[in-house]
This record gives sequence, structure tokens and C-alpha cells, in this order.
Amino acid sequence: MSDATPTPPRSADSTPPASDRVRLRRKPERGHHEREAIDAIIDDALVGIVSFVQDGQPFGVPTNVWREGDRLYWHGSAGSRMLREASGRRVCVTVYHLDGLVLARSATNHSVNYRSVMVLGTARLLTGVAEIEHALEGLIESIVPGRWAQLRPMTEKERNETGVMYVDLGEASAKVRGEASHDDPGDETWPVWAGLIPMSLVRGEPEPDDFVKPGTPSPGLRLK
Amino acid sequence: MSDATPTPPRSADSTPPASDRVRLRRKPERGHHEREAIDAIIDDALVGIVSFVQDGQPFGVPTNVWREGDRLYWHGSAGSRMLREASGRRVCVTVYHLDGLVLARSATNHSVNYRSVMVLGTARLLTGVAEIEHALEGLIESIVPGRWAQLRPMTEKERNETGVMYVDLGEASAKVRGEASHDDPGDETWPVWAGLIPMSLVRGEPEPDDFVKPGTPSPGLRLK
Repeated sequence: MSDATPTPPRSADSTPPASDRVRLRRKPERGHHEREAIDAIIDDALVGIVSFVQDGQPFGVPTNVWREGDRLYWHGSAGSRMLREASGRRVCVTVYHLDGLVLARSATNHSVNYRSVMVLGTARLLTGVAEIEHALEGLIESIVPGRWAQLRPMTEKERNETGVMYVDLGEASAKVRGEASHDDPGDETWPVWAGLIPMSLVRGEPEPDDFVKPGTPSPGLRLK
Repeated sequence: MSDATPTPPRSADSTPPASDRVRLRRKPERGHHEREAIDAIIDDALVGIVSFVQDGQPFGVPTNVWREGDRLYWHGSAGSRMLREASGRRVCVTVYHLDGLVLARSATNHSVNYRSVMVLGTARLLTGVAEIEHALEGLIESIVPGRWAQLRPMTEKERNETGVMYVDLGEASAKVRGEASHDDPGDETWPVWAGLIPMSLVRGEPEPDDFVKPGTPSPGLRLK
């Protein structure tokens, strides 16, 4: 699982990083600073980790994330620690998909296939009622397209109890490995299974609650 | 997806938190400070997010994590930014499993089922050759039990190029939601599908490389 040994060169992305902080020092061939690649990885995610600092201690809090345009959003209770502490501060939002386990014949050449994004920026809290509601519509639609209009409308109390934050996508980078296993020259005949074990997040059988009329189709997720 | 409205009470964990930093302020009934619950969630994970601070900027870096006893380990190239920057500093390691999407009849009652752990502590770098190799054996065994002994042995160069860090599990908390959907009284008849959509990370068909003899069984993962 180490990044310690060289891997075959891959096609690199010629877009310059938005800042030195998001420049990849290790294995730059795995990095992408193109918005298209970054957006695709974010849009495939339901959850991200929001990292912020409080009294010198970093916290990495998992939460739903979604994107609209140049903003990556998350939300929480208006009274939550994460929203109180992160507002106006530097954050990092990390999104990660595990796509496979790469089993080689040496420990060092083990790896994982993944797609990840790190977004660095200053967390901003939405304040306007209309923009909060619009953002929450974006969250619901990012999971089940068309669902917002079908829901019991949001009450003023519910809106007031919900805080929405975002970070701008200007300083972001993606990192991707999506390859077969490889071994050092001479290791190929070592007698152990080697290869790729694909991994993916999949949906199971929907479980309607007791009030759903039999025969009502379950909602189609945006994600496969 | 908001935590803003009350949910039915759940059985709480009577174990006191190890510190005020890991005490759950929101929905304490979802929290667990018992090591058994924490260990089980960590042991189900292949990847975690290590959050650390550099010049006031938090970074959340996804990486393989594994546990042995009271330590949560991760590794990287001995020259990587994460290992250089995190050593001796406060970190947060976050592990997260998405178990389901909870679709209610109001936006606010949407939620997700999940199991998560946050570990706060000071990152320590292993320095002894024997303990580094023992830890890396733990990594391989945490993925495929029995595999370490089958691999081409590690070289001194490979060991020297690999850094292993850990954080003690003394200050950790788990947070879990594993329930059906629920709606506010009166919303149950709103004409939209509501319920749970289970989600899970699953392995696909193993893809052996060109050097695996036909008929060689693929390795059994520790995870289902």
C-alpha cells in the first residue's frame, strides 16, 4: 500500500494548480487540477469530510456534501459545533471513493484504486432565507432528482434550524489511481495471486416504510 | 438530511467520553465512547481521513488505516508531506461507513445511516525497523489474512522508504445512525415514497494479472 516505489508514468494534467498548497508533491502524475475532473469526483459523492481547526486541534467531520457551480456545500443544525466553529475559517473538504484493492507480490507494490478531491478554502455560512432553501433543494436533488417538488414543503422553523455552509472550488485538486497491479521486474513469478479486486458502493433493495402504498415505485437515485 | 429536528430517543451509551473534545453535543444518543464499538467500526474500514494542520490550514488526507490493539495506524512514503507534517502534531483520524439513505416526506427528516469514528491524538512516527515491518504486516493482514507470509519478503530499501504513523485510541468517539425513516406526525400521508435505501461497499469480481496461473483461487478479504 506504499507510494514508495516508482510506478509507470501516466498522462499528466497540464493545468497548473491553483496554489502551492494543492500542488501534489508525491506522484504528481496522479494529480488533476482540472475542474471537470474535480467536479465529476465530487458529484459522485454523497459524503465528504470537513476538516477544521479548533484551539489547534484538527477535527474531520463526515457530512453530506453537494456541489452547485463553483461551490461545495454542506449543512447541519444551525447550532452544531461544526457550523459554529468552521464559519469564516479555513477548511479542507475531502471526498474519497475507494474503487479497488491492488494486490501485488511484494508488500510495497500493494495499492488502492481511488478517486479523491481536496478542496481548501474559507468556509462561508449562507444567511439569506431564499439561498438557504435553494441550497437545500440542491442537496435533495443531488440524491434523488425531482424529489424536492414532491416533498412536504419546508416550514420556516425548519429553515431557521438549518445552517448551510460552502467553500469555493477555486483551490482544489483531484488525485486518482485507476490501474491494474504491477510488480517489480523479477517478482512476477513469485507464487501468489496478484491483481485487482474492484470495490464499489452499491445500493441495496429499497425498504419502504409502512405508509407507502404497495406498488409505489421507489425513487431513482442520481448515483447508479 | 438535517439534524435539526428531534428524533426518537435511542439507547445511550453510559461510558463517559475520554475528553470534552469528543463529547457529542448534538444528538448524544447517537454517540458511543466504548472501545468495542469504536474498534468494530475501525476494523470494518480500509480507508480513513487523517486531518492535520499546516500554517493554520487544515488538510484532510485519505489513506489506508488499520488498527492493532490501542493504536490506529497509517503509512506513506517516508518523504511524504503528510508524514513530515503530521509527526508529533495533533491529528484527527476519521473513519466513515455510509450504510443507507433515509428518505422522508419532508426535507428536514431526510438523513443517512452511517457508522463513524473520530480519533483525536498526537501522531507518532515509528522508528524501529522491526516495529515498522510488524506494522506493515498488520496492514496487509488487515486486508487479506495470511497474505504477508506469502509475499516476496520486504527489502531493506523498501522498509527505509516507508513511514508508519499511529495515534493512540484513548481519545476517540463513535457515532452511529442505523434506523428506518421517520416523519413528523401528520406527514405520513403525504404522497411520496419514503423509507430506507441501504448502501454498502462491495467487492467485485477479482481480476488476476497475466502471471497468475489459471485456477489459482483469489484471496479472501477480511471484509465480506
